[in-house]
Amino acid sequence: MRTPNSIEQQAEALATAQSISEAEIFTAHEGGKLNIELTEALDDRRALSIAYTPGVAQVSRAIAANPELAKTHTWASRLVAVISDGTAVLGLGDIGPSASLPVMEGKSALFKRFGGVNSIPIVLNTTDPDEFVETVLRISPSFGAINLEDISAPRCFEIERRLIDALDMPVMHDDQHGTAVVVLAALKNALRVVDKDLETAKIVITGAGAAGIAVAEILLSAGAHDLVVIDSKGALHTERDDIAHMKLDMAQRSNPRGVAGGTAEALHGADVFIGVSSAKVAESEIAAMAEGAIVFALSNPDPEVDPAVAGKYAAVVATGRSDFPNQINNVLAFPGIFRGALDAGARRITLEMKLAAAQAIADLVAEPRPELIVPNPFTPGVAEAVAQAVMDCAAAEK
Amino acid sequence: MRTPNSIEQQAEALATAQSISEAEIFTAHEGGKLNIELTEALDDRRALSIAYTPGVAQVSRAIAANPELAKTHTWASRLVAVISDGTAVLGLGDIGPSASLPVMEGKSALFKRFGGVNSIPIVLNTTDPDEFVETVLRISPSFGAINLEDISAPRCFEIERRLIDALDMPVMHDDQHGTAVVVLAALKNALRVVDKDLETAKIVITGAGAAGIAVAEILLSAGAHDLVVIDSKGALHTERDDIAHMKLDMAQRSNPRGVAGGTAEALHGADVFIGVSSAKVAESEIAAMAEGAIVFALSNPDPEVDPAVAGKYAAVVATGRSDFPNQINNVLAFPGIFRGALDAGARRITLEMKLAAAQAIADLVAEPRPELIVPNPFTPGVAEAVAQAVMDCAAAEK
Repeated sequence: MRTPNSIEQQAEALATAQSISEAEIFTAHEGGKLNIELTEALDDRRALSIAYTPGVAQVSRAIAANPELAKTHTWASRLVAVISDGTAVLGLGDIGPSASLPVMEGKSALFKRFGGVNSIPIVLNTTDPDEFVETVLRISPSFGAINLEDISAPRCFEIERRLIDALDMPVMHDDQHGTAVVVLAALKNALRVVDKDLETAKIVITGAGAAGIAVAEILLSAGAHDLVVIDSKGALHTERDDIAHMKLDMAQRSNPRGVAGGTAEALHGADVFIGVSSAKVAESEIAAMAEGAIVFALSNPDPEVDPAVAGKYAAVVATGRSDFPNQINNVLAFPGIFRGALDAGARRITLEMKLAAAQAIADLVAEPRPELIVPNPFTPGVAEAVAQAVMDCAAAEK
Repeated sequence: MRTPNSIEQQAEALATAQSISEAEIFTAHEGGKLNIELTEALDDRRALSIAYTPGVAQVSRAIAANPELAKTHTWASRLVAVISDGTAVLGLGDIGPSASLPVMEGKSALFKRFGGVNSIPIVLNTTDPDEFVETVLRISPSFGAINLEDISAPRCFEIERRLIDALDMPVMHDDQHGTAVVVLAALKNALRVVDKDLETAKIVITGAGAAGIAVAEILLSAGAHDLVVIDSKGALHTERDDIAHMKLDMAQRSNPRGVAGGTAEALHGADVFIGVSSAKVAESEIAAMAEGAIVFALSNPDPEVDPAVAGKYAAVVATGRSDFPNQINNVLAFPGIFRGALDAGARRITLEMKLAAAQAIADLVAEPRPELIVPNPFTPGVAEAVAQAVMDCAAAEK
């Protein structure tokens, strides 16, 4: 997870954790991180006549006559657009399209490295949701799927919904659903460790932005009932008159005990804490959780509570950082989800696919232990397992 | 050059010339022709922390503070967008974005193969020029240059002009300027063969679309004076009341002798014929040209006049086909032009750059002969020479 205004701290954490200098980082990014390559060599006139004129005209004519052929005879069907307007980039906020491009290139690099998925970064020179949607619709024939990235809330909800409605291809805002899938996977295994059930666990989420709402949604879909979401002003509940849209909707479907107040009130006796905002949680609040507590302090690089401190009280602790056990990292989910959706020719990334992806990630840890509830990004077979789960869903839905 | 409604003929010509079957073509295009690759491996957590979070945040923050850094620390500065709306694709006309995609992928493949230039195809789901321009502006931070492709005339002129005006990066409609550069290169060497001068040569161009107008423009800029452009209704001249915009403008700057009529009238005594429409020219019209005539019959696959027939009267004959001598092929120009413009950090592709590119291509043939006035695409060093010429211009213009 990402913390606003903490880049200096991130840099410091990075330098401390891995001795990576600023010079090394800048050198690695020089000229960018991606290249285009040909699938077949073009070494003679004959190859040229096949790949380009006159041969290519036959393929174009065939697609014009039968648009379905675009799925088999262009790269669009195996190409994801990683699209951002640069409004909510890492801890940097609204830094605009050009400054967000290194992040989107990095995302494309992860897509390829972990899922074998081709993707290209498209950064948009607009912050208007209507223009965002309109632009993506106009360029959409170039792609087979859309990964939305680093778009500020609540705009991200509307943009994703409108694109899903309008496009006949998979569309997913990874900051919402990639996060949600990995949190659910981790929580499934953490609950196994402490021998509790999702259905009865008292769950508290801090943060009601893209990640917080999506995590709450998937947990409710997976069977959670007793779930409280807390924004900067306190727990979402139906008596509050300062919330609307997604937050109001979430208030109506969560918090069955009508918890009011902040983390102090909500965490008292809770089984699970999931932090996806940068708000700190006091040691005393963690200490007041139920026995066998689970703490996911996902703000990065500064967890909501020091994992060492949380470990004094909680049975399982996870963070967003790579230098502590149990890193909750979106890269466990998105390469496989898109790989599976593209390979299946799926038109949507459905709730069932996300739930299946979470189960597949959870299943990669045969014997969950307090310090091992999720695989790490380099565990072999993660993307393949996720992709297979998504494809199985797609087949079942057809 | 491309002929409307002649795809069956193209296929036939292709099959005849090179024994390429339809099955072989479709197999070669399966899954598309491009891949994304990483510039550096991501094989451990450390590499991941550099390429993505948290390391990438430092690069993004630096670009936010100093936008110039986007040119050195993203791939945009070495990335061309190959953009089409699919309105004038090969001989197929307005077949739409999806059907045009195999052609744009082919173009990207040529960019890489011949110029080492990264490019990605973007096909647009709109035929409205305002929406075309607006969309390209919105996605422009993703790229370092724009190659416009297969856009119908006269829309292509307006779209290119507006994008050049609005964007701070090279923008070029290749069907216009790539063609024009290679024609000028070929004509320079052909004139050397017949010992005539561009300044005094009587030149006739058939076709007043994207290619015809651009060829006329560059020839006038290079010093030609006696130039007649012929559209489907005859020679452009200022007395005609059925022409407007680009054609009217061209009529005002060409045809100093006020030639009226068609090719029969215009070719009588002419030194150079350049065909960039599909309109046939009679043997008798070629026979009536001046001694030492030059015939560029560039319609593809059916030249305006059979090159064997033209050879009975003309001293130099060129076509757009690879199975006759002197193939006039855009691939001699565009990879090197964009390579040079990107490497120089040029903000425009100027007239001087195009003229220098043409000279560089011409200079690659040390001793022009009737059957050798241009290099072929596989001649080593073509793109490098063109790129160097463009960079020299960029340096001189700074």
